[in-house]
Amino acid sequence: MDIHDLIKSLRESNDNKIVMLVADGIGGLAKKPGGLTELETAKTPNLDALAKIGVQGLSIPIKPGITPGSGPGHLGLFGYEPLKYIIGRGALEAAGIGFAMTDNDVAIRCNFCTTDAAGNITDRRAGRIPSDESAAVVQKLKVIKIPGVEVFVEPVKEHRFVVVFRGEGLGDAVADTDPQKTGVPVMEPAVKSGVKCADSEKTAKIAKEFHAQAVKILADEKKANNHTMRGFAKKPHMPSYEELYGLKSACIAVYPMYKGLASFAGMSLVGEPATLSEEIDVLEKEWKNYDFFFVHFKYTDSRGEDGNFEEKVKMIEEFDSIVPRVAALKPACLVVTGDHSTPATMASHSFHPVPTLMVSDLARTDATEEYSERAAVLGGLGQFEAMYIMPLAMAHAGRLGKFGA
Amino acid sequence: MDIHDLIKSLRESNDNKIVMLVADGIGGLAKKPGGLTELETAKTPNLDALAKIGVQGLSIPIKPGITPGSGPGHLGLFGYEPLKYIIGRGALEAAGIGFAMTDNDVAIRCNFCTTDAAGNITDRRAGRIPSDESAAVVQKLKVIKIPGVEVFVEPVKEHRFVVVFRGEGLGDAVADTDPQKTGVPVMEPAVKSGVKCADSEKTAKIAKEFHAQAVKILADEKKANNHTMRGFAKKPHMPSYEELYGLKSACIAVYPMYKGLASFAGMSLVGEPATLSEEIDVLEKEWKNYDFFFVHFKYTDSRGEDGNFEEKVKMIEEFDSIVPRVAALKPACLVVTGDHSTPATMASHSFHPVPTLMVSDLARTDATEEYSERAAVLGGLGQFEAMYIMPLAMAHAGRLGKFGA
Repeated sequence: MDIHDLIKSLRESNDNKIVMLVADGIGGLAKKPGGLTELETAKTPNLDALAKIGVQGLSIPIKPGITPGSGPGHLGLFGYEPLKYIIGRGALEAAGIGFAMTDNDVAIRCNFCTTDAAGNITDRRAGRIPSDESAAVVQKLKVIKIPGVEVFVEPVKEHRFVVVFRGEGLGDAVADTDPQKTGVPVMEPAVKSGVKCADSEKTAKIAKEFHAQAVKILADEKKANNHTMRGFAKKPHMPSYEELYGLKSACIAVYPMYKGLASFAGMSLVGEPATLSEEIDVLEKEWKNYDFFFVHFKYTDSRGEDGNFEEKVKMIEEFDSIVPRVAALKPACLVVTGDHSTPATMASHSFHPVPTLMVSDLARTDATEEYSERAAVLGGLGQFEAMYIMPLAMAHAGRLGKFGA
Repeated sequence: MDIHDLIKSLRESNDNKIVMLVADGIGGLAKKPGGLTELETAKTPNLDALAKIGVQGLSIPIKPGITPGSGPGHLGLFGYEPLKYIIGRGALEAAGIGFAMTDNDVAIRCNFCTTDAAGNITDRRAGRIPSDESAAVVQKLKVIKIPGVEVFVEPVKEHRFVVVFRGEGLGDAVADTDPQKTGVPVMEPAVKSGVKCADSEKTAKIAKEFHAQAVKILADEKKANNHTMRGFAKKPHMPSYEELYGLKSACIAVYPMYKGLASFAGMSLVGEPATLSEEIDVLEKEWKNYDFFFVHFKYTDSRGEDGNFEEKVKMIEEFDSIVPRVAALKPACLVVTGDHSTPATMASHSFHPVPTLMVSDLARTDATEEYSERAAVLGGLGQFEAMYIMPLAMAHAGRLGKFGA
């Protein structure tokens, strides 16, 4: 019996609500060893007040030492074993623009590139062509028709776009066509080396046809006369939140990527908030309609990625400022966490575990007095894999029965 | 190689003794967040003295967030992966009354119920008929004979009794006959939906015959004229303590349930103690005869289940008072733990991890000065799954050799 079977067999129906507040990349590092992290530097009176009555610990996104991308990071938060449920790059990119994939789809992340007269790549990212220009070129590709499948072409940002083939019996074991260097041609779509799969052969053939038509259409585009294809991927198969936890669940997020990830877990995407404050407006408005709310705040990660320590501190303080509005709704269990750390000193995601706080009448309060990396080390939840946040949240919300008599 | 294979390959023979003192449900919660738990409220000078020289931590009974029943809770303590070794309800109930199951047995938990003239259930628990009246009715069912199997019928408490069929080739994939509601008849015993199993067909047929005879016998019983059957179960298959750890092991317990669980692990049931003090008398008397002693104290759990915080505190103090007698025997490793938490505020088992203390010359003493939930968070054993208590106890008793050269 695995943890999902166990939870399915133990879950109880009631009205107890769970809120998971995710400050993306909230964990950090001090500028110098021994100093204070971004979170420890920030003034977070509201989170600290929760730490005093709740229980915290450190969640390990994947395994010790492993830095997650946003996909595996969020799958862990949602309770899916991130080494088991893999989201392919194409599916993640489709999620990122809010494209609703079906089980018959193969999604591909494409990059515009430039090639010379001999067909050799001169710029793998087409000079990072501006998004508006790129979108206009993508528009031209929408005329592409391939017998037997539906074709979708959607712009992302700059040189990036997404292609989705929809049809029966399409496999996704197709290799990237990006040679990862200039001076050579774009590779032909082909089944991954060592794989024998008729479904993927079919996809490779379709991709080849797509590329052939695209190259003709792009012939006169000076800034982007060719493209590569990467991360062929079907929609990931995973049990939904409803199936797994019996939770009617809602995602409140600004960025499409996180909406896409939540939709893979079967969450409803509610509202169209543009700011954190608007996200909490949506939370308040939808409070009666759902059991579980995933609320995503992006900018702690963004400023960390920028390498801007001071701005990340400010974003954490903004995050702290909305906490009272969430607490006022009195969820049975309030979880505050992040999908990974993004230390400004590294200007990237990192492997460091993430301070994770739970507030509930069933929380066994620990001795910590603030929400921070140093405090979390001494917290009552200890260190644990992020995939156990959901079982713990369910338990703290009184939504799991007893295993065995 | 799993942990059992590893231990079997590394265990060493010597005279070093291990005592596992289990205070059932000892972990708890404060009355209000931030307050003291039952264990933190209790005066436990003897346990605190051990904490100063030993090493403690928090054991997670099953997985984070999962609340165990007594069966899985104890299997974890005994070192069996509780999600792998499942004890069926009937087998647990048989264990609970000290019925010694064989490999040819199928045990069933039965409930007396009442049915009306049309055969529809009017009370699924026969008005919780008093135990003495129920036992007299059970006595009448003992005349039931079924060709090819031995039949045992034993009273439990109130409306509950146990039926065991003993014979060759009996399966246990038989569905419950309790429809879980009134106004409908007791269901006929039948193989579980989706299962094809001749052995279980045989059991279902025997159960049907049992029920038919029982209904005739019970026809004139006003308080209990029918019965349901639940949790058909064979004896669980697990390696014995002797096989696994090379330990000659003894169970000292007052309640039949815990004796039954220990007997599944192959422990000898020693003495007939009626109190904790008498349990320690048995421990002293049997000291030379065994390598391992499981000593079970029930009332910390009972008072927690009652929701009586103050009485649970007293039970913890009673438990503390016998600790010097155990320590005086100088076991190579003394373990103090519980099978789960039972916070009085919840009046039920809970998912919270359990303070677990080991005292041994090999213990790497930590900085904690008392045995409590808050101290255990900071203890040297960290947080770990309960199934690792036995490997740790074996190691602390100098009974495990080196893995690899």
